[in-house]
Amino acid sequence: MSETTTPIVTIASIGQYEGQTVTLRGWLYNIRSSGKLLFPTFRDGTGTIQGIVPKAAVPEQVFETLKGLQLESSLTVTGKVRADSRAPSGYELDVENVEVISAVSAEEPFPITLKEHGVDFLMEHRHLWLRTPRQSAILRVRASIMRAASEFFDTDGFIRTDPPILTPNACEGTSELFEMDYFDNDKAYLTQSGQLYIEATALALGKVYSFGPTFRAEKSKTRRHLTEFWMIEPEVAYLELDGLMDLAEGFISHIVTRVLEQHRADLKVIGRDVAKLEAIIARGPNGERVPFPRLAYDDAHVMLEKAYAEGKIENPHKYGDDFGSPDETYISSQFDKPVMVHRYPAAIKAFYMQPDPADPTKALCVDVLAPEGYGEIIGGSQRVDSYDLLKQRIEDHDLPLAAFQWYLDLRKYGSVPHSGFGMGIERAVAWICGLDHVRETIPFARTLNRIYP
Amino acid sequence: MSETTTPIVTIASIGQYEGQTVTLRGWLYNIRSSGKLLFPTFRDGTGTIQGIVPKAAVPEQVFETLKGLQLESSLTVTGKVRADSRAPSGYELDVENVEVISAVSAEEPFPITLKEHGVDFLMEHRHLWLRTPRQSAILRVRASIMRAASEFFDTDGFIRTDPPILTPNACEGTSELFEMDYFDNDKAYLTQSGQLYIEATALALGKVYSFGPTFRAEKSKTRRHLTEFWMIEPEVAYLELDGLMDLAEGFISHIVTRVLEQHRADLKVIGRDVAKLEAIIARGPNGERVPFPRLAYDDAHVMLEKAYAEGKIENPHKYGDDFGSPDETYISSQFDKPVMVHRYPAAIKAFYMQPDPADPTKALCVDVLAPEGYGEIIGGSQRVDSYDLLKQRIEDHDLPLAAFQWYLDLRKYGSVPHSGFGMGIERAVAWICGLDHVRETIPFARTLNRIYP
Repeated sequence: MSETTTPIVTIASIGQYEGQTVTLRGWLYNIRSSGKLLFPTFRDGTGTIQGIVPKAAVPEQVFETLKGLQLESSLTVTGKVRADSRAPSGYELDVENVEVISAVSAEEPFPITLKEHGVDFLMEHRHLWLRTPRQSAILRVRASIMRAASEFFDTDGFIRTDPPILTPNACEGTSELFEMDYFDNDKAYLTQSGQLYIEATALALGKVYSFGPTFRAEKSKTRRHLTEFWMIEPEVAYLELDGLMDLAEGFISHIVTRVLEQHRADLKVIGRDVAKLEAIIARGPNGERVPFPRLAYDDAHVMLEKAYAEGKIENPHKYGDDFGSPDETYISSQFDKPVMVHRYPAAIKAFYMQPDPADPTKALCVDVLAPEGYGEIIGGSQRVDSYDLLKQRIEDHDLPLAAFQWYLDLRKYGSVPHSGFGMGIERAVAWICGLDHVRETIPFARTLNRIYP
Repeated sequence: MSETTTPIVTIASIGQYEGQTVTLRGWLYNIRSSGKLLFPTFRDGTGTIQGIVPKAAVPEQVFETLKGLQLESSLTVTGKVRADSRAPSGYELDVENVEVISAVSAEEPFPITLKEHGVDFLMEHRHLWLRTPRQSAILRVRASIMRAASEFFDTDGFIRTDPPILTPNACEGTSELFEMDYFDNDKAYLTQSGQLYIEATALALGKVYSFGPTFRAEKSKTRRHLTEFWMIEPEVAYLELDGLMDLAEGFISHIVTRVLEQHRADLKVIGRDVAKLEAIIARGPNGERVPFPRLAYDDAHVMLEKAYAEGKIENPHKYGDDFGSPDETYISSQFDKPVMVHRYPAAIKAFYMQPDPADPTKALCVDVLAPEGYGEIIGGSQRVDSYDLLKQRIEDHDLPLAAFQWYLDLRKYGSVPHSGFGMGIERAVAWICGLDHVRETIPFARTLNRIYP
């Protein structure tokens, strides 16, 4: 690239250079012409800005170069920054010079245009689709959600401990796992959750969390399932269910607060109704924190019975069953904030959940349901801390005792009450961005039918 | 647990409560007795503290309970905090009361004692070994290294973009990969690096990084190899080799700075010579930043020739070959700071590296060698940005062109110069903590012979 004496800046920071001549390095995102004027829009990954190119004001070669340039050609642009209240970013660029780095061929133009494309086409070109403003905005919000999630735990004394991805057995039993050979005839499975492992690190370090990819080889093809997804999971020694719900509430509030602080512009590009997010962290009339509603399973069931009687849901909820998606949507629609449904029947929950001493048929667990029908975004529980009960549960669930011996050890050597939860990042991104499908929440989604690119 | 009116505190924060009666929740780490005095040491995951229990000063049942208690039993302890300059943490606890949460059985005592254990035994009990002070300290430092690594990029405008773990092809060709079935007869492979994918996100978002687990199914059994390890990889559009070296230098300096700020006590437990770390970020006589040495491959070769002639290394280095471990150790021993060796012969480097325009037999790449013989901790390069050259390289390396079509697209639609590097977290932890073997750098190491617990 040729030398330049003007400062090289990003579009996101261009407001600091009003009235100055700067150089941007990016791509031609769009261009329209109006007689002797060109209006190219440039993008550089941090945002987009419109340029103005009057034929009379620039060398002829600059005008002709831009006029013939295909979209997504890479270029450096030099121009003067001008405030313009009509521009989405508040600024426009009076273009003085353009240097093309790599021109896209007119015979093979950029395949993603402003017209509508089918989902398969877009996913097949995901490496290029990512460049469009909506997809870039979603990825920026995703990154901030992940950062805010870590930050919440890091600033509260939690130690990040990474559980293994390659495991010798399934966390929650024999559901569908990705299996592979692991050297001399051993088998390994991709983890579904780091929970069991971070129970061990919690008993070593007190407060811990894990943050990594998890996998399910389920043959489900829904708008909420990926085969590969990221989970953040805290686990805390000496924490019981009520404290766990406090933790989940603080955690979600922190993430939503950060996204609203940092991504108003991105949420606008995505088309998100931010009022729905503001409601999550809305304070009471005197500025006090308003807790998320907490609803026992039994009370949620009564709520659904009433809703069915009033014709507000189509099918009755059977006591003892898990909630279906329409049930969750109805329950969450009754509140502006996420709802914490606790104490589900133990029979429909995982083997490691502590029974409620007040009613041992119930588990000391909580599911956090996102508003607007986005369903469960957090699932957590207090863990069984009795060696004998845990051993019994493992046997009852026909799990291989030998594989869980180390996990049982945690109840043999200084067992303590402890609790944790997991939040799937993609579902959180879908909810916070208001997306219909999780495939847009991650750079390269892995689904039943897709492993390319 | 019974209610308590004293504040519940952590050992790490106990200095704030000097002279007050507090309650700790933790485990019995050690205990010795001297007639009518007991000296139990408690741990709670944030640190350890010694208690004093004079028989005459506590209820008899408290004395007898503690006296008979097995190590790693869980308990809550109430006592008064007293400053004591002889104590490692600066404080001791005058114990007033003890409540046992779960007593370890005398028939099955905690298996890890203060005597020496074999490595296999320790790794088999890794879920318990983690509780010992040295292992806990290493995990705390690891967590801070990971946090500092993210922080460096987050505060410099990088967007975290997560590449897929399940990939349809190998990044660097046909080396050993973990392979599995991916539904309808497709095969999937565990990623070795997110690089190719984040080249796509860099061209969308400008500055990006990935941070996740990577895998190698290599049959190597050395103190530097794991089959599962974490990598952080930045990738930057419009960045060339010199800028990449600046980035790597700033990145390493930031991590070492943070570890020294936050973990002096942990480094002491680990037995690390912190002077070696202080040298990494040592400033010049006038307080100025002292850059890391940059050494061309050719100059490193000359250095090794001279060393061989002087009998300082055992074997001659053959020009054109990669550096062996003794070569790297010798080179790094010549400097106090990490050495950045650049412009290796292209023939021994990856297919995607940009040739040096000044000498196309060299690649625009850099390996950062840690001091003290810890070897390569960062490898990076400028990437080939020409479509034709990259296609040629893929063919020359017998890689399947169809699988790389999306990667080639990045050179067809607005190609730009771009560069990135990768740092393996476990090697960085081994170096910063001064460990002999990477198996202690991660909670549950995965090696050729180990996938349990």
